[in-house]
Amino acid sequence: MITHTGLEPRHEEFRDRVQAFCDDTVRPVVEEHEREGRFPLDLVDELGDAGLYGITIPEEYGGEGMDYRSFQVAVEELSRVWKIPAGVVSLSCSLVGTSLAEFGANWQREEWLRDIFTDNLVTAVSLTEPQAGSDAAALETSARRDGDELVIDGHKVWTSHGEVADFLIVVARTGDEGDHGDVSLIGISDPQSVDGLEFVRDIPCMEGDAVVESEVKYDGVRVPEENIIGEEGKGFKYIMRALDVGRIGAAAQGVGVAQGAMDASVDFADEREQFGQPIREFQGVSFKLADMAMDIQAARLMTIWAAKNLDDGNRVNKQASMAKTFATDVAMDVTTEAVQVHGSRGYSKDYPVERFMREAKGAQIYEGTNEVNRQIISDHLFE
Amino acid sequence: MITHTGLEPRHEEFRDRVQAFCDDTVRPVVEEHEREGRFPLDLVDELGDAGLYGITIPEEYGGEGMDYRSFQVAVEELSRVWKIPAGVVSLSCSLVGTSLAEFGANWQREEWLRDIFTDNLVTAVSLTEPQAGSDAAALETSARRDGDELVIDGHKVWTSHGEVADFLIVVARTGDEGDHGDVSLIGISDPQSVDGLEFVRDIPCMEGDAVVESEVKYDGVRVPEENIIGEEGKGFKYIMRALDVGRIGAAAQGVGVAQGAMDASVDFADEREQFGQPIREFQGVSFKLADMAMDIQAARLMTIWAAKNLDDGNRVNKQASMAKTFATDVAMDVTTEAVQVHGSRGYSKDYPVERFMREAKGAQIYEGTNEVNRQIISDHLFE
Amino acid sequence: MITHTGLEPRHEEFRDRVQAFCDDTVRPVVEEHEREGRFPLDLVDELGDAGLYGITIPEEYGGEGMDYRSFQVAVEELSRVWKIPAGVVSLSCSLVGTSLAEFGANWQREEWLRDIFTDNLVTAVSLTEPQAGSDAAALETSARRDGDELVIDGHKVWTSHGEVADFLIVVARTGDEGDHGDVSLIGISDPQSVDGLEFVRDIPCMEGDAVVESEVKYDGVRVPEENIIGEEGKGFKYIMRALDVGRIGAAAQGVGVAQGAMDASVDFADEREQFGQPIREFQGVSFKLADMAMDIQAARLMTIWAAKNLDDGNRVNKQASMAKTFATDVAMDVTTEAVQVHGSRGYSKDYPVERFMREAKGAQIYEGTNEVNRQIISDHLFE
Amino acid sequence: MITHTGLEPRHEEFRDRVQAFCDDTVRPVVEEHEREGRFPLDLVDELGDAGLYGITIPEEYGGEGMDYRSFQVAVEELSRVWKIPAGVVSLSCSLVGTSLAEFGANWQREEWLRDIFTDNLVTAVSLTEPQAGSDAAALETSARRDGDELVIDGHKVWTSHGEVADFLIVVARTGDEGDHGDVSLIGISDPQSVDGLEFVRDIPCMEGDAVVESEVKYDGVRVPEENIIGEEGKGFKYIMRALDVGRIGAAAQGVGVAQGAMDASVDFADEREQFGQPIREFQGVSFKLADMAMDIQAARLMTIWAAKNLDDGNRVNKQASMAKTFATDVAMDVTTEAVQVHGSRGYSKDYPVERFMREAKGAQIYEGTNEVNRQIISDHLFE
Repeated sequence: MITHTGLEPRHEEFRDRVQAFCDDTVRPVVEEHEREGRFPLDLVDELGDAGLYGITIPEEYGGEGMDYRSFQVAVEELSRVWKIPAGVVSLSCSLVGTSLAEFGANWQREEWLRDIFTDNLVTAVSLTEPQAGSDAAALETSARRDGDELVIDGHKVWTSHGEVADFLIVVARTGDEGDHGDVSLIGISDPQSVDGLEFVRDIPCMEGDAVVESEVKYDGVRVPEENIIGEEGKGFKYIMRALDVGRIGAAAQGVGVAQGAMDASVDFADEREQFGQPIREFQGVSFKLADMAMDIQAARLMTIWAAKNLDDGNRVNKQASMAKTFATDVAMDVTTEAVQVHGSRGYSKDYPVERFMREAKGAQIYEGTNEVNRQIISDHLFE
Repeated sequence: MITHTGLEPRHEEFRDRVQAFCDDTVRPVVEEHEREGRFPLDLVDELGDAGLYGITIPEEYGGEGMDYRSFQVAVEELSRVWKIPAGVVSLSCSLVGTSLAEFGANWQREEWLRDIFTDNLVTAVSLTEPQAGSDAAALETSARRDGDELVIDGHKVWTSHGEVADFLIVVARTGDEGDHGDVSLIGISDPQSVDGLEFVRDIPCMEGDAVVESEVKYDGVRVPEENIIGEEGKGFKYIMRALDVGRIGAAAQGVGVAQGAMDASVDFADEREQFGQPIREFQGVSFKLADMAMDIQAARLMTIWAAKNLDDGNRVNKQASMAKTFATDVAMDVTTEAVQVHGSRGYSKDYPVERFMREAKGAQIYEGTNEVNRQIISDHLFE
Repeated sequence: MITHTGLEPRHEEFRDRVQAFCDDTVRPVVEEHEREGRFPLDLVDELGDAGLYGITIPEEYGGEGMDYRSFQVAVEELSRVWKIPAGVVSLSCSLVGTSLAEFGANWQREEWLRDIFTDNLVTAVSLTEPQAGSDAAALETSARRDGDELVIDGHKVWTSHGEVADFLIVVARTGDEGDHGDVSLIGISDPQSVDGLEFVRDIPCMEGDAVVESEVKYDGVRVPEENIIGEEGKGFKYIMRALDVGRIGAAAQGVGVAQGAMDASVDFADEREQFGQPIREFQGVSFKLADMAMDIQAARLMTIWAAKNLDDGNRVNKQASMAKTFATDVAMDVTTEAVQVHGSRGYSKDYPVERFMREAKGAQIYEGTNEVNRQIISDHLFE
Repeated sequence: MITHTGLEPRHEEFRDRVQAFCDDTVRPVVEEHEREGRFPLDLVDELGDAGLYGITIPEEYGGEGMDYRSFQVAVEELSRVWKIPAGVVSLSCSLVGTSLAEFGANWQREEWLRDIFTDNLVTAVSLTEPQAGSDAAALETSARRDGDELVIDGHKVWTSHGEVADFLIVVARTGDEGDHGDVSLIGISDPQSVDGLEFVRDIPCMEGDAVVESEVKYDGVRVPEENIIGEEGKGFKYIMRALDVGRIGAAAQGVGVAQGAMDASVDFADEREQFGQPIREFQGVSFKLADMAMDIQAARLMTIWAAKNLDDGNRVNKQASMAKTFATDVAMDVTTEAVQVHGSRGYSKDYPVERFMREAKGAQIYEGTNEVNRQIISDHLFE
């Protein structure tokens, strides 16, 4: 039975493959890494070996050459177990992979893109600044030309995977126009070894200590000017395009996190007895589960819908914002209720649901807060 | 661009056809009928002439031989303008059409089914009783055998279209088993002329006076025993099967009603100015519209998902309950907010949104209340 | 037991008196008036005879001289049965009564105010215009001076009780300043007999046909200039002050409507059996009732809090907006769920809950939409 | 201005005192303790020295002899800054303090109760078991009589403050009746030094590492039989009574946590600029703040209402459940939105809102899950 409108049988077969990977390789290591606050660097290699890393990246550059629905399936299934590896895949295929694959110079694709997906490198994007969150036009980091080099100065936060990244894209102003017209993307290999580029700290956050969210200072960082990805001054346009993919990724994370929390809740409601019966026999519990089931399926279909449109070559700015916002709001609601279904156990770290709840909150914020996305959606309604 | 995952281009073409019919034929007559409290009998003929009546009924019986996604499209688009004709189509294709087409004796299909869809007859189903709403097992209406006749006694409520129906199915007990095992469906042609069958009143309800919801008394009503549809005692099973279709119809009504309310709200927010600007520039308004857009698209995709599964020959009991509950809850929320977006005008009958709100409330209740459907959904989670 | 924090025993005794009046005088006539679409003119006299009309109006002007918590109690209890008489009391004590009692000239209080509450006259306020709803500064109705007369021209909508009113206040511009600085309140006795003042129609609305919401044209209506209430150009200030009371009244209506819907739901859940037990034994029902109980009590306490502050002589602009918004949103939610608890019966006019649901919707809109009130509340947060 | 209906001026003065204590003594130490995962033992002494520990405990036993509204004020204000000290006060005054003060033998009050509040001892209650959460009747821990001793065997979880407690009450069966009739409360001083009583681990939980939630094994723990608090077999009754106070405490924690999150959000919205203006000027933000303000004030009034009823000597089982459920649900919603208002900063531990969100989740679960409380509330509706 094809349960997911818009997916083909091949996507369901791929889902089976990802699920097997998750069961064999991800699930056994989650708890330890989370407890010890350790980023799962090994998993990136294992993802690559299993053909689950550069999912949408052309095969000629070391990727899998699959479509965006496959990307959505993989990110969903990974998130159903642990959001960290899902985020690694999502970021590499979206902001990094899309920028390089679609807009990068030949040498950048040959060298950077192929290396990333052949050697399973961890990637990062340095975009957000203390004063420029949703408002990307307020970016202050500058890349001033000096000879045939660029000199980068600025202060970035929320650079996911930053201090463990092998390749990093920094978003900076290469001109004086203000607004969006002078923003460029600049690639940097092996950023830990670059003079003037300092990973100031790993921002402590609700998701826990295993995730890496770096605060980064750029103090006269020099890179060759050819490191500008694609055309100078087109960075904002590239980001917008890559965000379509990134938002589908974030939506898939929302679906997966919510499904993971629901799986746990259904199992728990089946086993846990109170007042002489399994708690699933109380409508106070079972109606919550029914709502979870509906909301998650709706979120999944929204995400598939956006991915299918992208696979068909359509612009999906509106669809991606809709899927992202809807799915991550669902994730927040579902995970909060999943903890509740588990009662005090749900509040403990003995069960995964409190982690899913903390993961969900982040997803409502990154890739454009859900408020910024609501503005995007409503703007489209009046086009 | 295929905007609706799971629909084919032919469905979108069909949607265009239904929209044209709605614009030309339905929209111009809504207000007058609603104001005067008049059921739109003429529309049934016009639906039939336009090929929009027996959508899922085989062509050999006067129907259109289309799939359930087409049914979903038609019911959605009709509801976007007016729920009454959508309900006529939905009921005829679900409880009536499915029962006869799939389970009826040959003569019943040749005569009853073909007549309905050749002559565009109005159909009704007499199921709900004062003490048996969600709890169908509590049905008390009996059909006692007397020679080769059945003698029907009972009291029914909420028999949609009852007093204007040309063909009616009454659900009655033909044995003494209790429970579900002795329930049969019995067809009755031209019910207004049948002795002992009295349409006591048109139940006044929130939807308004144009809709017909009959309270019916059966007092020694005699019909030939061959009027039992399909096999005696299988009525409950047939209803369950037909309800899958009926719930997809109800879900499509929810989607359409919500979309109609949103269309009106977007137009209004674009035109209405307050405090020197169109009200769509206030996030207090535009965020509501963004939420409507997301929720409605999610509801639509859920409904298409259920219909697609039915088209593929799958059992859709769970999917239909999920689509029905989700979509009608969305309709209630969206229409309530749509009135709010319109301010005091939304509360007046000069605008359609307060009608959409009243229509939505009914859809949360019929074809199984959303509470009964939540129980069905949660039961499936533990199968 | 004092169940309501902030109320004194005397308020509870007064509540008993109002409840007795409602049971004896209001409850028996609701259904007939609603069905026939007839405004309950007689009830106004009976309210007056029972000492329930000019509740907050000084005794020297025919009122009861009670405090605003008493006003809140009376409006709540009336709304619990029928919102129309509650609206008559609320409007007369707020926009009309406050304006005249606090700001009116002596002769206006002696003549108009005393007449209203001695003879139990119906009052109306002509404020909203087609292009000036929430945005009162956009008012276009003008009152031009001609000798010692004012000549009023304009177009008003939503003049509650307009065509049955004995006394009407029209809000009009008496200068050319624009903004709020030139708005005046003008009293008009016996408006039906005034040349140029035409009650164009009773706006058909969701609440039903018994309520009177007049559309009014003022075409060269001449009144003596002394009819300006209080000072010329201070109308907007008077309205703001009177709206504090009006919003407490609207909040109390929300509480009462919700409580009426809950009362009916508790009774229904106790009596209605499905699947072999009273439906109150299903948590799908009983948890809805628990939520109703909590939300309504919270709304009641918010309303008492605002009224208590007003009784203590505080400014309550923020409190009144909070109570109004919170309580009417609760009313919308509770009544929508109350219909659901009743199932198909709730959708019929045989039970009061669908009426409560339609009444609740209006309360979210009048006395400032809940969106305008949210803006007011948030502005106060940053004062 | 008395802003809180039901509170007297003396309560507002007391609030000022608590706020001063929080600003001077609590606020400066929160971050360090949270970061280092250290329970604030010193704070208990400081609370005692400031007269904020045994708030409702009679002065003759070292307490402050204040009313339950004062208790509510103190717990709310402490929670507004940090929930851990609020929980210490709440538990000591409710489950421990109420049991001893109202039901304890004279020597227990003279010795245990006075010691606790004179020496500022930390208290704990060992109630929940792995298989007996909401279902207290399923308790399995037994206290078997052996001579004039009791021998306690069992396994407890969620014993708040357990391993740092100076005095602990364990709930155990002292008979074979099953059900509630044989449950007793047994006091244990200096539990760390008692043979057979093992604090197995500090349960890792969402709230963080500073809170102490012990898992405790009782393996043949011997205590004198006179350690039974009050009468043998009345433990369940005592707990029910003490839970009324505990739920008011939990409600006050919900109010405080929510208010703390709102305070931070208002400040942030005022300072944070995006798109050229403070984000408070976007209704997408300001309407969230208005909703917070309303919901929190409603929760506060509900809590005061329950406390006032208790102060008046009424039974408050229903009121306490209503206040607890309403206020903690509000806390969950408000804190989740508060993180959202802060955007990515809210997700970091640089701001307090993500902690408030984690604190809120626990409050929906302890002192009876909100589902158990909904059942209690609805049961009361049909009494």
